Amino acid sequence: MRADGLAGGHGGADRLGELIPVALRGMAAGVAERGGPVPAGGPAAVAAALVAEGGDLGQVTGDTDAETGAGAAAPGEQHFASAPDPTAAAALRGTVPAAALAGAQSPTPAAAGTGALPRRGIGAEAALEQLSRLLAAGSADPADPACAAHLHCPPLAVSVAADVVAGALNPSMDSWDQAPVASELEREFTAGIARLCYPEAGNPDAVVTTGGTESNLLGLLLARENGIVQPVCGANAHHSVARAAWLLGLPAPIVVPCEGDRLLPEALDEILTPGCVVVTTAGTTNTGTLDPLPEIARICRRHNARLHVDAAYGGMALCSDTLKTKLAGLDQADSVALDLHKFGWQPVAAGLFAAREAADLGALTVRAEYLNADDDTEAGLPDLLGRSIRTSRRPDAFRMAVTVHALGTDGLGALVERCCATAAEVARHVEEHPGLRLWGPPELSTVVLRPVVADERGGDELVARVRRALLEAGTAVIGRAALPTAPGGGNQLWLKLTLLHPHTTAADYLPLLDRIVATAGAELVAGRESPVAS
Amino acid sequence: MRADGLAGGHGGADRLGELIPVALRGMAAGVAERGGPVPAGGPAAVAAALVAEGGDLGQVTGDTDAETGAGAAAPGEQHFASAPDPTAAAALRGTVPAAALAGAQSPTPAAAGTGALPRRGIGAEAALEQLSRLLAAGSADPADPACAAHLHCPPLAVSVAADVVAGALNPSMDSWDQAPVASELEREFTAGIARLCYPEAGNPDAVVTTGGTESNLLGLLLARENGIVQPVCGANAHHSVARAAWLLGLPAPIVVPCEGDRLLPEALDEILTPGCVVVTTAGTTNTGTLDPLPEIARICRRHNARLHVDAAYGGMALCSDTLKTKLAGLDQADSVALDLHKFGWQPVAAGLFAAREAADLGALTVRAEYLNADDDTEAGLPDLLGRSIRTSRRPDAFRMAVTVHALGTDGLGALVERCCATAAEVARHVEEHPGLRLWGPPELSTVVLRPVVADERGGDELVARVRRALLEAGTAVIGRAALPTAPGGGNQLWLKLTLLHPHTTAADYLPLLDRIVATAGAELVAGRESPVAS
Repeated sequence: MRADGLAGGHGGADRLGELIPVALRGMAAGVAERGGPVPAGGPAAVAAALVAEGGDLGQVTGDTDAETGAGAAAPGEQHFASAPDPTAAAALRGTVPAAALAGAQSPTPAAAGTGALPRRGIGAEAALEQLSRLLAAGSADPADPACAAHLHCPPLAVSVAADVVAGALNPSMDSWDQAPVASELEREFTAGIARLCYPEAGNPDAVVTTGGTESNLLGLLLARENGIVQPVCGANAHHSVARAAWLLGLPAPIVVPCEGDRLLPEALDEILTPGCVVVTTAGTTNTGTLDPLPEIARICRRHNARLHVDAAYGGMALCSDTLKTKLAGLDQADSVALDLHKFGWQPVAAGLFAAREAADLGALTVRAEYLNADDDTEAGLPDLLGRSIRTSRRPDAFRMAVTVHALGTDGLGALVERCCATAAEVARHVEEHPGLRLWGPPELSTVVLRPVVADERGGDELVARVRRALLEAGTAVIGRAALPTAPGGGNQLWLKLTLLHPHTTAADYLPLLDRIVATAGAELVAGRESPVAS
Repeated sequence: MRADGLAGGHGGADRLGELIPVALRGMAAGVAERGGPVPAGGPAAVAAALVAEGGDLGQVTGDTDAETGAGAAAPGEQHFASAPDPTAAAALRGTVPAAALAGAQSPTPAAAGTGALPRRGIGAEAALEQLSRLLAAGSADPADPACAAHLHCPPLAVSVAADVVAGALNPSMDSWDQAPVASELEREFTAGIARLCYPEAGNPDAVVTTGGTESNLLGLLLARENGIVQPVCGANAHHSVARAAWLLGLPAPIVVPCEGDRLLPEALDEILTPGCVVVTTAGTTNTGTLDPLPEIARICRRHNARLHVDAAYGGMALCSDTLKTKLAGLDQADSVALDLHKFGWQPVAAGLFAAREAADLGALTVRAEYLNADDDTEAGLPDLLGRSIRTSRRPDAFRMAVTVHALGTDGLGALVERCCATAAEVARHVEEHPGLRLWGPPELSTVVLRPVVADERGGDELVARVRRALLEAGTAVIGRAALPTAPGGGNQLWLKLTLLHPHTTAADYLPLLDRIVATAGAELVAGRESPVAS
């Protein structure tokens, strides 16, 4: 196939029907080669593999038989040899076959690392198969239960499939004449999200964002445009709150103390003034803890302060009848951040920002003659430009809408419940484990733990090394959280498992708990032998 | 298949291999139903079709035979009847079969327009096929030559196919342990882009953005962080420059006059002071005109002002040996905005921001203990957080890199050349057309024209109505531009064709030129009969 074939138009579906199987073949081969949740060897090995692949890409001429998409060749048979590249092999720790990442017959250093983009192409099929394989072999795949560090979910196939159509047709959400039905679908979907957050409000609305970071920025921006310029947030707030204040030219947030990773309402009450916008968290990044929303909402009302809730993590618990009580008080907020690339199982980005009063979003109004001229708007063409601080935008609402239509909110709520139930059970196992200490019972799906040996010897440095050792071995991807549990109130480093895999059970994580303890022991020994951190 | 099947992991490729053909079948059916570049009937018809579809979605139980992906059913046969929904049919103008958009057997009003998301799902296959068909039938498809209004390109199939793998594996570009090889690939690709923009610079760098709007914001942000707070731009600058100043809490830009949609250097020279950051344009949205970069760069240097070039449209002409002379002087700028979702044929978003001095990007540095703790960074884990103002990010660099490896920069440059050559030829035809007036010869691929009848009778209102009439008839999507050509220097409304289709020839656009003239005549008659605008 011509490398410059189009995805849209009359032949588009056929072209994609030929090329996508090539990409999927490369992906399947890469997943098989990786074997575990993440490539072994750490950054050096991954970088070396890319250099090797660069040489390979420079050599291949693109003469694959991929046009049938029939998978006649065994995965990877054509472009990847089993002989490892020596550079990559040296960097790899030997835990997985070096060929998985290296994948090069004889790298040509001249073609890699020059910093220049390739002038000549190798064809669509070769580029797709090789780079898809490289990406899969070198990814941290959240569909593997042992990849459980971050709010980094394994996407649903239905969402990824829907995104193909969105990408092929390429609606650009900055004007109606670039996105006729896509804009209507987005409007319908965001109206549903607004209703989910604000079931009783008179006129709520929501817009699509690139994630919690942009949503939190919108929360502060709408406050600023209402003349409210002093952000206030808990010590548990996401770093994007302070960053948004910086971007918007606002004062740095006043930080309210927390207890148990939960904002202290009485502390808030003491400092609040009418010129404040409070950002509170429904599901912290560190522990999944929810701030006491009803009490905070009352305090904000009393002080005539604005309230934005960062529910990027916890918000989709609204889809579960049993869990949504945790979010009582959310509908008292002026605005809410919600991420469907966390609970919601969308690929990033799938951010949403809901406002209790649609009129508040008027702050985003902007006119551009070529996109939303007054006379076009008066003639009935919907104005999309005021729906975002971006101009061109992907129709991310499409795959979110397809997902919700496929599973229903009940179906999504059930997946949220399953993750939370699994986390509760894993937490019980941590509590009973002689080698581990549990930070506290999970409110959502985050399990925070610490090897007890670190309390005796090794301390935070040992905790950090356990995480890096598992990562570099390719065994597991687990997270870290600094929490004020040290004697005297100082921070202490914890490990965390953020469980977003909707199909696992606690049993899938039990070997990982043992592995953490064993690795802590091994690192302690290694640390005594050599005082230098890995 | 289970609606909640995952795209990643060991079975992911197989699941996608089953579901994507369902989505593509829906898409192909929708494209065929639409027939033209855009659905007929305007916003009312499209909204009505969605309401009808909402009823349909509420009814379907999801028992398709889509699991084989074999296309046993004719496109759309299962869920779309040929009998049009009366609501949608009434809204449609009868230009295309109402069934194309309506697609409903018997809409259930209770299930649509309630503002609530559906609680129960209809299954992955049914949701995918129906909504993909709806999206395709209701899209403005830039793969149709008559969809030529905006900087809205038809994406390459290779890029859309690559995006499947990115979506399935879901690398999140905010930490290395969520995106091991994806971050390395991005680093390599952005280094290549930086080198493309700055072939002679000592240490240039580039980052991925959501598009020109974010890139222009970064241009002003980096200036602000260097203590430079007064933006200056031409009257031809994109609206995102003023919007970025507003977001960042900077003064509104000082606007420098233009002539022929080109910034006047002497006017710039008069107002410039060392505290200024100048935003100049290499390819305006209205006409594709390029500012005189070498002269502007000299003036900025003389005044010790910063310079950011918005090359969102024109930047990829750097890939063409014959066209890149137009961008001489670009490498004198402190920073450059580049969009590969324009020339580059990526689905939105594919924005890039290049800085001549990598150190300037240090302004984006941010620490978040859970993502880039100091000890992790010291231990060799790359810090990705400072590569963006977002936190979670899609690996958009992956599909860009696959595209560049497939076609090479020479291949992309050839496509840019073809678009520009076609535009030049279409412009000649406009010039020779008795019913049309050409604004001026295209510098890139934008042809700006006006029906001569509007100069005599009808004026700007007629021009605007021609565009809307073609849009509502489903015949063509053309753009508009207000340019200061009126007697006395006031603005006058023009029509524009932005030619980003890489496979068309001038002959594809000649019928459209006649159609514009005919529509202007018809609208003039209609306007005389009824003074109310459509």
